[in-house]
Amino acid sequence: MPALNSDNPKNRPKTESWKTQLYDLIFGSDTPTAKNFDILLIVSILISVIVVMLDSVASIKADHGQLLYNLEWFFTIIFTVEYLLRLICVESKAKYAGSIFGIVDLLAIIPSYLSLFLPGSQFLLVIRILRVLRIFRVLKLVKYVSEAELLLRALRASKQKITVFLFSVLTLVVILGSLMYLIEGEENGFTSIPRSVYWAIVTLTTVGFGDIVPQTALGRTLASFVMILGYSIIAVPTGIVTTEIQSATRQMRTRRSRHCSCGNSENDGDALFCKICGKEL
Amino acid sequence: MPALNSDNPKNRPKTESWKTQLYDLIFGSDTPTAKNFDILLIVSILISVIVVMLDSVASIKADHGQLLYNLEWFFTIIFTVEYLLRLICVESKAKYAGSIFGIVDLLAIIPSYLSLFLPGSQFLLVIRILRVLRIFRVLKLVKYVSEAELLLRALRASKQKITVFLFSVLTLVVILGSLMYLIEGEENGFTSIPRSVYWAIVTLTTVGFGDIVPQTALGRTLASFVMILGYSIIAVPTGIVTTEIQSATRQMRTRRSRHCSCGNSENDGDALFCKICGKEL
Amino acid sequence: MPALNSDNPKNRPKTESWKTQLYDLIFGSDTPTAKNFDILLIVSILISVIVVMLDSVASIKADHGQLLYNLEWFFTIIFTVEYLLRLICVESKAKYAGSIFGIVDLLAIIPSYLSLFLPGSQFLLVIRILRVLRIFRVLKLVKYVSEAELLLRALRASKQKITVFLFSVLTLVVILGSLMYLIEGEENGFTSIPRSVYWAIVTLTTVGFGDIVPQTALGRTLASFVMILGYSIIAVPTGIVTTEIQSATRQMRTRRSRHCSCGNSENDGDALFCKICGKEL
Amino acid sequence: MPALNSDNPKNRPKTESWKTQLYDLIFGSDTPTAKNFDILLIVSILISVIVVMLDSVASIKADHGQLLYNLEWFFTIIFTVEYLLRLICVESKAKYAGSIFGIVDLLAIIPSYLSLFLPGSQFLLVIRILRVLRIFRVLKLVKYVSEAELLLRALRASKQKITVFLFSVLTLVVILGSLMYLIEGEENGFTSIPRSVYWAIVTLTTVGFGDIVPQTALGRTLASFVMILGYSIIAVPTGIVTTEIQSATRQMRTRRSRHCSCGNSENDGDALFCKICGKEL
Repeated sequence: MPALNSDNPKNRPKTESWKTQLYDLIFGSDTPTAKNFDILLIVSILISVIVVMLDSVASIKADHGQLLYNLEWFFTIIFTVEYLLRLICVESKAKYAGSIFGIVDLLAIIPSYLSLFLPGSQFLLVIRILRVLRIFRVLKLVKYVSEAELLLRALRASKQKITVFLFSVLTLVVILGSLMYLIEGEENGFTSIPRSVYWAIVTLTTVGFGDIVPQTALGRTLASFVMILGYSIIAVPTGIVTTEIQSATRQMRTRRSRHCSCGNSENDGDALFCKICGKEL
Repeated sequence: MPALNSDNPKNRPKTESWKTQLYDLIFGSDTPTAKNFDILLIVSILISVIVVMLDSVASIKADHGQLLYNLEWFFTIIFTVEYLLRLICVESKAKYAGSIFGIVDLLAIIPSYLSLFLPGSQFLLVIRILRVLRIFRVLKLVKYVSEAELLLRALRASKQKITVFLFSVLTLVVILGSLMYLIEGEENGFTSIPRSVYWAIVTLTTVGFGDIVPQTALGRTLASFVMILGYSIIAVPTGIVTTEIQSATRQMRTRRSRHCSCGNSENDGDALFCKICGKEL
Repeated sequence: MPALNSDNPKNRPKTESWKTQLYDLIFGSDTPTAKNFDILLIVSILISVIVVMLDSVASIKADHGQLLYNLEWFFTIIFTVEYLLRLICVESKAKYAGSIFGIVDLLAIIPSYLSLFLPGSQFLLVIRILRVLRIFRVLKLVKYVSEAELLLRALRASKQKITVFLFSVLTLVVILGSLMYLIEGEENGFTSIPRSVYWAIVTLTTVGFGDIVPQTALGRTLASFVMILGYSIIAVPTGIVTTEIQSATRQMRTRRSRHCSCGNSENDGDALFCKICGKEL
Repeated sequence: MPALNSDNPKNRPKTESWKTQLYDLIFGSDTPTAKNFDILLIVSILISVIVVMLDSVASIKADHGQLLYNLEWFFTIIFTVEYLLRLICVESKAKYAGSIFGIVDLLAIIPSYLSLFLPGSQFLLVIRILRVLRIFRVLKLVKYVSEAELLLRALRASKQKITVFLFSVLTLVVILGSLMYLIEGEENGFTSIPRSVYWAIVTLTTVGFGDIVPQTALGRTLASFVMILGYSIIAVPTGIVTTEIQSATRQMRTRRSRHCSCGNSENDGDALFCKICGKEL
């Protein structure tokens, strides 16, 4: 998650050279020039994603197909050059290429080249939108980054409870879907167990597309049960995440409260003595 | 938000005159006359909004079109006069015209005049309903206002976390929508990426209109994933807002609580003696 | 709410007589006979509600119409007799007839007689189901009653915040519905402002029937906004109620904690001195 | 719930024999052989569930019907042998056969034999998926088991509140459904009270299939009320479960926390010194 905040500063070339300057321009965001570079980059990414999306609309493609095609390649070439420059100016090529941002940067150009052989794959270019996450670094939105970290910490802390919950939900939809398949049968749209399980997910999550609906009295009764169940157990992930967000918020506030000279900075707000070394605060 | 509670009292004319009296009548709500004026105004607003809504129903318009038209102009003229009076009796015209209530008061009359040139724009008159917010002041619903303020404070405190959450959701629906476009294709209703992104929003938010639904096995599998995701991550805004409402509530109660010279500041609001040292408060 | 727990014992006839015995049988639930009477009553109510529901199913009515009709009148006569007996044996007729249970008891028989003049009104008999609430008293489900009271107290405490929230939601759907009416127009199903407001409610609450759906690009964009809004602000009532349930739970536990001989039983769990009289606990 | 964690160790044969060895292999998960046995079992279960699901898809059955049929019986025979071995090697046959896992193990093979007389019942084999719950024991996911226990404890603690809530919801949907039946009538799809109650459940839980929708102005108004109600009262189960998950979490953490002889029992779990008096713990 610190990756959201900044690229790895240890990857900056040690000897001062044109590489260092290039590194500071591309990876940095402290100088005005570097900041402008980043803003230009984000605007390019957003435009290029919009271009890809518009290219998929038949009526727009009919009118402006050539323009959109040219723009797509224009941005692809720019991002390719940028990726190569990033590779060149880092101390360890492998470290950058293997980092999350490095992978996303690469994925953001591959689909264009792929589309030469595999028509349609250029739509995968929307993955470029992930690059916009750099916006947090550019705008120095420290507060936003720390909030994002708090949310991530809460989600990570609730990982095991959420896994148990999802596991139970999956078991449930398999059994409920199969029961509906037996009750309703193929003549009412429940043509197979996988499709009935899909219906059970649509219903339990309260999405309710309505493309498949029970037709028999027994089927409606079971469906009612599924709906009330889904309506009630949504409380479980909510309860889990709320609890974790609260304790993450409390920890964050506590951490700011009482620091001790022994280095322990996790004393409670009402502590009179350091809980690690016993010294009076 | 204090604007919900009262119009700016500093804008009252300093010298006593007919303007002051008018000001007290229109802006005030302390004298019975002023209160009656406000109640009359709110009733007028509500009726005028209902008139606009009925005017849009074809069958009602066919029967009572002329009556509704006349009523619309009747209320517009009344509200125009009222707006001019408000402008006249305040100390600083600019301050009132630039305040939220001043803008809403103006917006509430413009559409009628606009409809002379741009038929249909009279339906924008429903914005008048915002004027009803004055009801909080009229009825002296102090308790309600303070609760509204607490909610607003909680929402404001969670602004950054909510922004991060919405930002992630938007990134997610763009990527998921594009994937569905590639998987399902135009023959199954996913005619373009923007439309597929719209489907992803419909599904992730558990709305589920059912106008576009996946038809392929792979599409249904991805849709299942989107639904379970939407069902689970609704826990995030809920957790954020719950945490903030709780701490806003606690702050409000603490502020009322009783401090003791022994250092204990956690006595209840109704305590007469400190619960730790027993001293009278 | 105490009404859920017991009928008003002050309404028991003061002089011992056959009325007192009848009162203890019908209103009481302490003796085995009284308990059996109550259980018999609840079973009758449930059967009678099921009879009404089955009577509305065309195929069942065709086959068993006469039987269901007879059963409806059988139960109506029983409940009428029961209502009269209740009226007779209470000390103050007005007090019983005006209590919530008295009104429900009356409403549970009126529709049958009404249906003689107004066919169809017998379906209102389902209101009888409210009488089943007595089940809490019969089964002496003290724990359940106290939990129901806790929930009611939490809801009552959040009444003002919920009102503010609902008021904002109503204002919102009026404005959003009108905008959709202007954007989509009659040709896309948004035939009037009231209907568009209905659509806005369907969408904001994430119900999503799909009977009316936006067809234009701009309409879909606004719909996306409405959906994400609805998905997010569901956090507000949730946060409000969660906070109140928590503090109601805490209060209930605290109240059990420290009683003082001065009569104050609301000292905190960690209090050393009574917060009202200052005496050491 | 400890059953999730381990089979009852008291059921291990007391005298060392081939039965004991068999017991350790089948029921144990400590030796590498026993662990491999368990993993093999879970993989078999998952494959057998997938076979059942695929068998219900018409196109797949047409092509690979015989293969799927053979696989189903292959797994059924394996699981039957396994069940008999389990029965043989336990100390008390009745204890195992009556335990939750014993019942699930039996239910997982019965449908195959039943399908010989009752075609279609083989689809009930999906109940085998419940056997996968053993995965928690196999993988020694102690942390996951304790989280599952915490969730179960929270759900059990909120049982009474949830019951009261569900009871109220059921009462509500019966009354609201009947009202809609009276308002909309058979010509608008509300063909009977049970069906209208089904609609009320679909709407109140915000599922919104859209197969039945109100057509009259009054019906839409009531539907709007039902939707806003459902949107708001989802806060109740959420509030209940959140409160219980929080207090279960707190209890679990407190149990680990450190008490001091000065009376302060609120030291953190990692504290070495009392935070109030500074004494070493």
